[in-house]
Amino acid sequence: MVDQRFYQHLGPISLATLLGSLDVECGDKRHGKIQIHNAAPADLAGSQDISYLKRSKRPTKLENCKAAICFVHNDNIDHVKNFSCVPVVSKHPRADFAHILSKLYAEKEYGSNDHNKYDKVKIGANVVIGAGAEIGQGTKIGPNSTIGPGVVLGENCTIGANVVIEFSLIGNNCKVHHGAVIGGTGFGIALGAQGGVDIPHVGRVVIGDNVSVGCQTTIDRAMFGDTVIGNGCKFDNLVQIAHNNKIGDNCLFAAQVGIAGSCDIGSGVVMGGKAGVADHIKISDGATLAAHASTMHNIPEGEVWSGVPAMPIRQHMRSVSAIRRLTRKKVKPAKEQG
Amino acid sequence: MVDQRFYQHLGPISLATLLGSLDVECGDKRHGKIQIHNAAPADLAGSQDISYLKRSKRPTKLENCKAAICFVHNDNIDHVKNFSCVPVVSKHPRADFAHILSKLYAEKEYGSNDHNKYDKVKIGANVVIGAGAEIGQGTKIGPNSTIGPGVVLGENCTIGANVVIEFSLIGNNCKVHHGAVIGGTGFGIALGAQGGVDIPHVGRVVIGDNVSVGCQTTIDRAMFGDTVIGNGCKFDNLVQIAHNNKIGDNCLFAAQVGIAGSCDIGSGVVMGGKAGVADHIKISDGATLAAHASTMHNIPEGEVWSGVPAMPIRQHMRSVSAIRRLTRKKVKPAKEQG
Amino acid sequence: MVDQRFYQHLGPISLATLLGSLDVECGDKRHGKIQIHNAAPADLAGSQDISYLKRSKRPTKLENCKAAICFVHNDNIDHVKNFSCVPVVSKHPRADFAHILSKLYAEKEYGSNDHNKYDKVKIGANVVIGAGAEIGQGTKIGPNSTIGPGVVLGENCTIGANVVIEFSLIGNNCKVHHGAVIGGTGFGIALGAQGGVDIPHVGRVVIGDNVSVGCQTTIDRAMFGDTVIGNGCKFDNLVQIAHNNKIGDNCLFAAQVGIAGSCDIGSGVVMGGKAGVADHIKISDGATLAAHASTMHNIPEGEVWSGVPAMPIRQHMRSVSAIRRLTRKKVKPAKEQG
Repeated sequence: MVDQRFYQHLGPISLATLLGSLDVECGDKRHGKIQIHNAAPADLAGSQDISYLKRSKRPTKLENCKAAICFVHNDNIDHVKNFSCVPVVSKHPRADFAHILSKLYAEKEYGSNDHNKYDKVKIGANVVIGAGAEIGQGTKIGPNSTIGPGVVLGENCTIGANVVIEFSLIGNNCKVHHGAVIGGTGFGIALGAQGGVDIPHVGRVVIGDNVSVGCQTTIDRAMFGDTVIGNGCKFDNLVQIAHNNKIGDNCLFAAQVGIAGSCDIGSGVVMGGKAGVADHIKISDGATLAAHASTMHNIPEGEVWSGVPAMPIRQHMRSVSAIRRLTRKKVKPAKEQG
Repeated sequence: MVDQRFYQHLGPISLATLLGSLDVECGDKRHGKIQIHNAAPADLAGSQDISYLKRSKRPTKLENCKAAICFVHNDNIDHVKNFSCVPVVSKHPRADFAHILSKLYAEKEYGSNDHNKYDKVKIGANVVIGAGAEIGQGTKIGPNSTIGPGVVLGENCTIGANVVIEFSLIGNNCKVHHGAVIGGTGFGIALGAQGGVDIPHVGRVVIGDNVSVGCQTTIDRAMFGDTVIGNGCKFDNLVQIAHNNKIGDNCLFAAQVGIAGSCDIGSGVVMGGKAGVADHIKISDGATLAAHASTMHNIPEGEVWSGVPAMPIRQHMRSVSAIRRLTRKKVKPAKEQG
Repeated sequence: MVDQRFYQHLGPISLATLLGSLDVECGDKRHGKIQIHNAAPADLAGSQDISYLKRSKRPTKLENCKAAICFVHNDNIDHVKNFSCVPVVSKHPRADFAHILSKLYAEKEYGSNDHNKYDKVKIGANVVIGAGAEIGQGTKIGPNSTIGPGVVLGENCTIGANVVIEFSLIGNNCKVHHGAVIGGTGFGIALGAQGGVDIPHVGRVVIGDNVSVGCQTTIDRAMFGDTVIGNGCKFDNLVQIAHNNKIGDNCLFAAQVGIAGSCDIGSGVVMGGKAGVADHIKISDGATLAAHASTMHNIPEGEVWSGVPAMPIRQHMRSVSAIRRLTRKKVKPAKEQG
């Protein structure tokens, strides 16, 4: 379920122990002895796992959920009736699930590490490398950088100064420029009884070959599974790539671009500076999002979109012209009256 | 006046010494012997302190100013007539005040520090901790991070790698992710004779419990007093919180949000990615600012605003529709003519 | 051609060696023995240098190109006919030129450095300073910062913690706040046979006196020549200044501003938070770009522009009013019908 280079798997743990301090109701006390192996979202959970159903007014499709146990809100108890999993009634199913995650998985410690074991690798002063990290030949790491335990860097990569890389697999010939952070936790917050609860992220970042990541750029790891960056992508400075994005090959993102979570971005996609993409958006191959544009809609293959909210660029140009005409008309009479 | 865990108070200093190299005029030479204890803005200054009146075409209300001495521009000399403070006539009152601040206060040095004194704290490799910093049990600090002198970190906090925290008091169960900077100086520039003068910041950042701060996010300390972040706030990556902001509990700010200085933000406020707030704005409890929106106006309780410039979301949706209709109308005849 | 404090000049190298692995055609085999000294863009190349003509449908003016050798696409071979330089026919002239750059120049290594040689300089814990760096008296460097080989810092500068400075000359009395990155490579990508190729940057950053650079701000070095920041400029946090920008004196840029490459920005220019400027734009002295505005057009002296796309602020205000009127009209009948 999780990559054990990065995470320690603390399971199996009995359901009773897992639910210990939580304010939940489990229908059948006998279930307390069930050994839970993993925690996973409904579509990924196996038959020894615990999952959750997000509280929702609309019924959620759970057809393929194989989980043994599932947190569910009382309002949604009907949604799990047809499934084999045992419901655990919770006021905050996603927050309780987050709590379970932190009991089942722990981030690996940095441990101690002998830099001399890396053959033909240039490691700058004060670089910290976690235990189990693998670094390909010809790779250079700038001073004061931090490479987490289990991280894999390919061959002939150039890692700048003051960079942080954790929970990531990075291909060959990549460049990660100064101050960039790859593999930080994603921004996933569940509503709990006492406010927001950070959902532990147990995923990874997987980056292809020939990728360049600009200074101060952040690429978050997935909550589950992978944030994926294809071969040949080039990202400028101060770009934000949120958790669970899938980005194809040869994309070019200019500075200060921001991609919210779980987007599906094709190959050859170009984004101008400060462009923004809402979560769960699909941007197809060869599409372009202009500088300072912000899209909440999918962009079809090869199209160029611009504006806030973004629309096809010809439509946006017409909007801009129409507004300009409008102000001309409105201004003239005012001048005549004056 | 200032928190002496962070700043060394160099006063009292005689007025004559303080004004030494400045191009100012003090009405009465006898005042040179007055001992000045602190420098503070008009509303905070005490009877042994020096303050300033910002140059302005409109009269400024100074009713409650108790300062002994006040820099004032010749154009505004009438504004201080009714007050007990002695005016010092200056061509650049705010820049001269900035100069005085750097004579009265100095940032504490990092000094030397024995990491072993921190009980049940995990400190990563190459972490630098300034003298006098306090760190609660169960807190972890990632490699290559810098914790300034006098900083207080609560219990069970997780501080990432390559983080910088200075001039800050942070509660329990907080997370500060990789590369974040908390407590940097704010962006306060006074116009002096030779261009802009950085105003020294002698305030703090005060953060509650259960707060999460994203990678590369910056939270500036106050010029005077505190930048305040309430309990349970969750900030994503690359967010900018400028000096002197007051932010309530349980606010959620997505990536690349920017809040200019001295805003008053309630509890439960949500901001989408890249949202921006101008300075001195009030955003009331439970309000939402949509992604990529930018507000120069106060937002009432519970309202959802969007757009650039931001407006209530229904109005914004109507604007977008109206512009769309407009372009359709304008386009049709053109096609007919063609 | 390049500043040898920062770059090692590996030339001269014979043309045959330089072209070795490239898929190009050089008209005359005898040219293989020519010794190439430098690689430079057409307007800077000398008579022993190699240059390139960017593939273009329109003829490019090359009148003053003195280069000995010039990569050119077969479609553009006519454009170089009247010049003395020998054409090398390439499918990807700019990408091949990028490849040559990395053969002719190498970044200097950090080497070893004795911090004690810096007189009256305060150097924080774990600071890394490259060989040949010069640091003026009275300058302080915060913990965990990285100062590249050959960097020059003036007197009385304050460099924060976790800062990276490379390939830069910085004046006196400057402040570089925590986490800032100065001198990172610019975002220059050439299209090659296998996708994008990073163009090596062999330029510098040159910063005047009394400049302040905010936390996490990035200032990229030039591809050739200098990115220039004038005296007295003040930049807030998370600002992006791309390669080859020329910025005059006393400019004020608020947080999250982004300036794309090769702009010409005058003195006294003010930008509000999140303002953006497209590449190759000229912004004249004393102009203001409002918060959240984005300009693709030059801004004349002293003008105030706002909006996305940016326009003179009065025109923008009229647009906003016109749209508001438009929505009122459309809404009224709907209410009457209701």
